[in-house]
Amino acid sequence: MNRAAVIMAGGSGTRLWPLSRRRRPKQLLRIVGGKSLLRLAFERLRAMLPATDIHVIALTDHLPAIADELPELSAGNLIGEPIGRDTAAAVALAAAVLHERDPDTTMGVFTADHLIRPAERFVEVVRTGFDAAEQHADALVTFGIKPTHAETGYGYVRRGERIEDGVWAVKAFKEKPDADTARQYLDSGDYYWNSGMFVWRTATILSELRRHLPATHDAAVEIAGVHDVEGRRRRAAELYPTLERISIDFAVMEKASKVVVVEMAVDWIDIGSWTALPRAIGSDEDGNAVSLERCLALSSRGNVFVSEDDHLIAAIGVEDLVVIHSPDATLICHKDRVQDVKEMVRRLGERFGDRYG
Amino acid sequence: MNRAAVIMAGGSGTRLWPLSRRRRPKQLLRIVGGKSLLRLAFERLRAMLPATDIHVIALTDHLPAIADELPELSAGNLIGEPIGRDTAAAVALAAAVLHERDPDTTMGVFTADHLIRPAERFVEVVRTGFDAAEQHADALVTFGIKPTHAETGYGYVRRGERIEDGVWAVKAFKEKPDADTARQYLDSGDYYWNSGMFVWRTATILSELRRHLPATHDAAVEIAGVHDVEGRRRRAAELYPTLERISIDFAVMEKASKVVVVEMAVDWIDIGSWTALPRAIGSDEDGNAVSLERCLALSSRGNVFVSEDDHLIAAIGVEDLVVIHSPDATLICHKDRVQDVKEMVRRLGERFGDRYG
Repeated sequence: MNRAAVIMAGGSGTRLWPLSRRRRPKQLLRIVGGKSLLRLAFERLRAMLPATDIHVIALTDHLPAIADELPELSAGNLIGEPIGRDTAAAVALAAAVLHERDPDTTMGVFTADHLIRPAERFVEVVRTGFDAAEQHADALVTFGIKPTHAETGYGYVRRGERIEDGVWAVKAFKEKPDADTARQYLDSGDYYWNSGMFVWRTATILSELRRHLPATHDAAVEIAGVHDVEGRRRRAAELYPTLERISIDFAVMEKASKVVVVEMAVDWIDIGSWTALPRAIGSDEDGNAVSLERCLALSSRGNVFVSEDDHLIAAIGVEDLVVIHSPDATLICHKDRVQDVKEMVRRLGERFGDRYG
Repeated sequence: MNRAAVIMAGGSGTRLWPLSRRRRPKQLLRIVGGKSLLRLAFERLRAMLPATDIHVIALTDHLPAIADELPELSAGNLIGEPIGRDTAAAVALAAAVLHERDPDTTMGVFTADHLIRPAERFVEVVRTGFDAAEQHADALVTFGIKPTHAETGYGYVRRGERIEDGVWAVKAFKEKPDADTARQYLDSGDYYWNSGMFVWRTATILSELRRHLPATHDAAVEIAGVHDVEGRRRRAAELYPTLERISIDFAVMEKASKVVVVEMAVDWIDIGSWTALPRAIGSDEDGNAVSLERCLALSSRGNVFVSEDDHLIAAIGVEDLVVIHSPDATLICHKDRVQDVKEMVRRLGERFGDRYG
């Protein structure tokens, strides 16, 4: 049985503007230790798989930048989607492509949106996931992150009976809870954060897709059946706009007959906005989180300073700011207003077109 | 009688870092309407003099940048000082050079540190100054800015008896006053701000310098007597370090027998630090002063945004900040802390050497 991994690197990452752009999603930003989230995800998987068995699925427009970021991957391991159609379509296409190559494949699906520490534990748990998917041929395996706090921003997975060490049956998937419910989830010990990461045989997930989302299944199989690059791209461009926008959780996981969850007890840090960065990179004694080569801050506290090049940021007497430098634009935003970065990007689009988007 | 003008463009302008640098003094910054203060000073004088009669004295290191800024000037009109030795040395050297060319010259000395409006009134008053210097051959003429408020940051000139329309004898030069004294000066109507701008015959100022600051006089005359460029530069490099650091006010104006003041009623805006900019360029309805091509500020008030290129500044929810973008460094400073920009430059020097200085 062949093991393969697919990293889903979709998404636009508007909230990490001005570093993230239409053609440069957040997974490509080198803001943590000089490495991108995609690179970190790839390196975690490389600890257990050869590069030939690691694939990335992303917007076709993003593939050149992804190829630059992961030069170890051959072009055949980069799967392009003409437009985003949520995770059900991405999973279907990736499964169909891998199944077309070798129908005897167990496939892990991973995200690159989070910082995961320690990498060693991640590898160990993912191995357990592959083992479980191979042992229980008809099962869909999901990874559940052991919660560290009553988070209301994630979906949850409720576990049922224990199947084996670290592996449980799934009793239910839960939407993002309110604060009280999140607290109950945490206290009960029976709930995990829904990681959006999975393992299954390609045959099994395709069979589930055929049952629960047949149009997407058929389109994915048809696209994967076209072997010349240009032809496949053309067919994908024709079929993708017709596909339903739906997550793999809604489309399949909540309906499938046999779903198991593997517990993953790791630090799981979503870099979804600039204020999440201090948790990822730490802060100095003044509470400034600095992710750049050159920064000097005098009498300044609680700020986030980021640049990807050696541009200098010099700060005097400022507090609770997010300062992000990119070659053509600098964001200066109060920490309490990072949710307005999306609105800023929209307004910039109105005023300057694609120039800074 | 020939009329000539000299613009003194010395100074380092550390307080306007990161736009001003060692090799790029504040007079060269294009922060007001896309023109530098030097360019504006030159254009004011061009309204009354041909370019052949306008000279600039500045640090030799700055002359290439100045030549770029004022392409109308021939190399012979750029007078270099190897090091700064305050205004007495600069005036002496400029007077000696002009006198060497034509001893029958009336010479105006101007600064390029201030924004002056309206230019038409400046021209009119400077003409009055030249007339006065030609009519009273032994007089040193200074320009006194009519105060608009009780400023404690300037020196003052007290006028005595009226000589003719707009021209008075000078009774005394006054140091920067405390607030009460500044208020008395303003109320009395007899005091002007000391502009640091003058008109005199070259013969007259050289004679006063010979009496009150003989070593500087002799050095200036000797340097001006060397006609080949390299030889003059070499001699200046030898003599300048021996000269006293003293202003022309202390060295000559306060001691000279006949000094008159010509009233100049103009807007006189010293761009000495970033917080002075709003007065120079105005503010929008949110009190943001914006001197750059591209800026978008959401829910932000009372800030100063400056860039000389088309780098975008995007601000969200910030107040009372000074944000200055230059190609290799960005300053973000609370308005109350702009006096610390000098300290920042010093600290950057310790840490990065000349890289950002």
